[in-house]
Amino acid sequence: MNFDVIILGSGPGGYIASIRSAQLGMKTAVIEKDSLGGVCLNWGCIPTKSILNSAKILQEIKKNKKLFGINQIKVDFSQILYKSRNIVDKMRKRVSFLMKKNGIHVIYGEAKLKKGKKIEIFRDKQKIEECYASHIIIATGGKPKIEKKFKQNQKKIIGYKEALSLSKLPKKMIIIGSGSIGLEFSYFYHSMGTEVILIELFPKLFPSGDEEISDQIKFIFDKIGIKSYVSSFIKKINYTDQGIIVDIKNSKKNITIEAEIVLSAIGTIPNINIGLEEIGIQTKDGFIVVDERYRTNIEGYYAIGDVIKGPSLAHVASNEAISCIENIKELNPQKIDYGNIPKCVYCSPEIASVGYTEKQAKEKGYKIKVGKFPFHSIGKSICDENIEGFVKVIFDEKYDEWLGCHMIGNNVSELISEVVVARKLEATNYEIMGSIHPHPSLSESILESIFHAYGKSIHL
Amino acid sequence: MNFDVIILGSGPGGYIASIRSAQLGMKTAVIEKDSLGGVCLNWGCIPTKSILNSAKILQEIKKNKKLFGINQIKVDFSQILYKSRNIVDKMRKRVSFLMKKNGIHVIYGEAKLKKGKKIEIFRDKQKIEECYASHIIIATGGKPKIEKKFKQNQKKIIGYKEALSLSKLPKKMIIIGSGSIGLEFSYFYHSMGTEVILIELFPKLFPSGDEEISDQIKFIFDKIGIKSYVSSFIKKINYTDQGIIVDIKNSKKNITIEAEIVLSAIGTIPNINIGLEEIGIQTKDGFIVVDERYRTNIEGYYAIGDVIKGPSLAHVASNEAISCIENIKELNPQKIDYGNIPKCVYCSPEIASVGYTEKQAKEKGYKIKVGKFPFHSIGKSICDENIEGFVKVIFDEKYDEWLGCHMIGNNVSELISEVVVARKLEATNYEIMGSIHPHPSLSESILESIFHAYGKSIHL
Repeated sequence: MNFDVIILGSGPGGYIASIRSAQLGMKTAVIEKDSLGGVCLNWGCIPTKSILNSAKILQEIKKNKKLFGINQIKVDFSQILYKSRNIVDKMRKRVSFLMKKNGIHVIYGEAKLKKGKKIEIFRDKQKIEECYASHIIIATGGKPKIEKKFKQNQKKIIGYKEALSLSKLPKKMIIIGSGSIGLEFSYFYHSMGTEVILIELFPKLFPSGDEEISDQIKFIFDKIGIKSYVSSFIKKINYTDQGIIVDIKNSKKNITIEAEIVLSAIGTIPNINIGLEEIGIQTKDGFIVVDERYRTNIEGYYAIGDVIKGPSLAHVASNEAISCIENIKELNPQKIDYGNIPKCVYCSPEIASVGYTEKQAKEKGYKIKVGKFPFHSIGKSICDENIEGFVKVIFDEKYDEWLGCHMIGNNVSELISEVVVARKLEATNYEIMGSIHPHPSLSESILESIFHAYGKSIHL
Repeated sequence: MNFDVIILGSGPGGYIASIRSAQLGMKTAVIEKDSLGGVCLNWGCIPTKSILNSAKILQEIKKNKKLFGINQIKVDFSQILYKSRNIVDKMRKRVSFLMKKNGIHVIYGEAKLKKGKKIEIFRDKQKIEECYASHIIIATGGKPKIEKKFKQNQKKIIGYKEALSLSKLPKKMIIIGSGSIGLEFSYFYHSMGTEVILIELFPKLFPSGDEEISDQIKFIFDKIGIKSYVSSFIKKINYTDQGIIVDIKNSKKNITIEAEIVLSAIGTIPNINIGLEEIGIQTKDGFIVVDERYRTNIEGYYAIGDVIKGPSLAHVASNEAISCIENIKELNPQKIDYGNIPKCVYCSPEIASVGYTEKQAKEKGYKIKVGKFPFHSIGKSICDENIEGFVKVIFDEKYDEWLGCHMIGNNVSELISEVVVARKLEATNYEIMGSIHPHPSLSESILESIFHAYGKSIHL
């Protein structure tokens, strides 16, 4: 079949691209080798938010059980995972509906790029179809990185997918990597009752974050009993009948830990085993190289989302999708500002940030003003009895440009969009200080931290 | 004693004014007749948010009890109120600390204004002190309005203060007025197990809101079992030993309801029995008249917060406080934009809004673009299993000015600040559409509703 646009992959890059493409009148197909919605919907953003919501409710129940006469809590781990799968099914049906509504052809199978704008589609290694398109968008996403030096063992060294579908709760789990996936699963499994040990190669947890955020999450994880080793890596894993014995090399000493299971959360790598070589599409360090219009070096081939360099985030992929399609139609879409992408971690407390960390701002040569405000002085946090964490803002001293904002606390994933919008509009401290925030609300913390940066604090 | 500035009242207007005044080097006193922090801290914003948080946790527990093996829930009403009082105490201590830290004189007693910039302070009707100040700020706030035609009966016709300190849970309660206070207490008492009947004079619940918000809260209250009568008022109340019998006049029929207690939530009136006449300070409709620098007609006398016309909201009073003080010091503070004040109601689902309603925008003569997006199509809402409600945006068709935004749903009180900031910066739809929101988050609903307004919806 011939199409105007074929998209490989139906994740938050691919399915959004297909809808926008169809909306703009192009005959569109999506090729999906697994499930509609990609990793984000099936094994990432969505199911993790469901299980984390369950964990947070459990935390509230424990804190308030006296108020509600609750004597006994018995966590049903399987039911919590099952619920998350139901939510995934529901949302996948919604994407499926949107595909039908927009007249998008969905073809299930593995795609291989062939010369002459051809795509061959395989199911169970059998070729089932051939398609052609004027514009081919690669949105095949990523897969978990698992270090080669460990023998593959899907039951004992697992990735996020398996971590979302374990048949029983492990007693003890080692999690490698304290990026967002590592932090979220650490919090979740700890909440469920698993003994969690978190291993981080860098000297701080959440190494991509502002250092004060890293210190705070370490402090809180220590307090609630999630053990972590920083400046550490796994030297060797030995398999036993019961589980695994892991040798950890720490900057100070070597440690041996027995555990039932290891979750590798050291990041993802692009899925690009789709025949790029045959077309001559250029890659670098495993990523497809594109220009600012998401065009590869070969005309008619584009790439978006986790297969290109940049933050591996659903909301980035979706925006690249729209931008790529609108560029194909010469609609002159807004350019994505990669310096203004929010990043959230949904453990408890949550982490959210946008822009430069303090260290990055200094490295860039800025003279900065920093403000910080703790949630324990915010009325709404006190009422909700979730007083951990703070908001930190970083401004350029010279022009009052808002360089960065870093938050850790309850619900901060909902506060960060305000900062993104403000930065998009090049707001200075003056304009935010003149924007009245509702009282009581957690969002007052943003205002208060700016007051603090500019020596106008009332509440500190 | 002589002061540079004396402030009457220590609510969110008064205490903020006193801190800013002291920070700017003025010798400052606050006179408080009751408790530091005023109604907001002691009987308003703060304790209600605590009890509503308890109610929301109860709602989550009920929804998720199977996940956590909870068989029995026994709500401890007294403990829930007690907890809110503890939170109030804690926050009052914090205000007290800020007073000490800033060297502010706090004088407890009732203030009477006297000629010659004198203030006499009374305790138990005895004069205990006289003070003088160059600048006198009236920030005495408001008190609940209770219709005169009903005989005062503090046990059976109560205001918000009594509603926060009942010794036992009433079986049946009539709440008059469905503004924020009425809605919040309706939801709270219904959650606790009281049979609640809500009476509203206007044809819709939450009459100050956008009509679609009013319809949605009515729909949800009906569904959960909060009975409400609109276009209704109370004709007569008869007291019995058990409680009260209330005759309600409805546009269609007359209704008689027996209840244990009536909560009057028909608004507040200014506390201005402080000797304004003696000074000659002008009032209108019971409010003190001020200019845009919060000066009354008499030099050296100012008024802020609920004693002047305008929205009776803590965050407005606090901003007026800072503005008033900075004006006294000739610091040329930003003018408050009364068209950009967020308003929140913290029942479940929450309500938050800023700017014009659809009806107001049309009445002002705007040609408008309206967009709406339901939370049941937002991934984060689905994960949290709180899918009720929507976001509605109103833009001017000609200049794409963001005229208003109205939300009903879980946690929307944290989403509205983004809109306030965007409107402060005169953002158009184009700039918000170019601001990447995190996925998954509730804040995506704002973006989606703007996409909807401009025919660019992906998910509808």
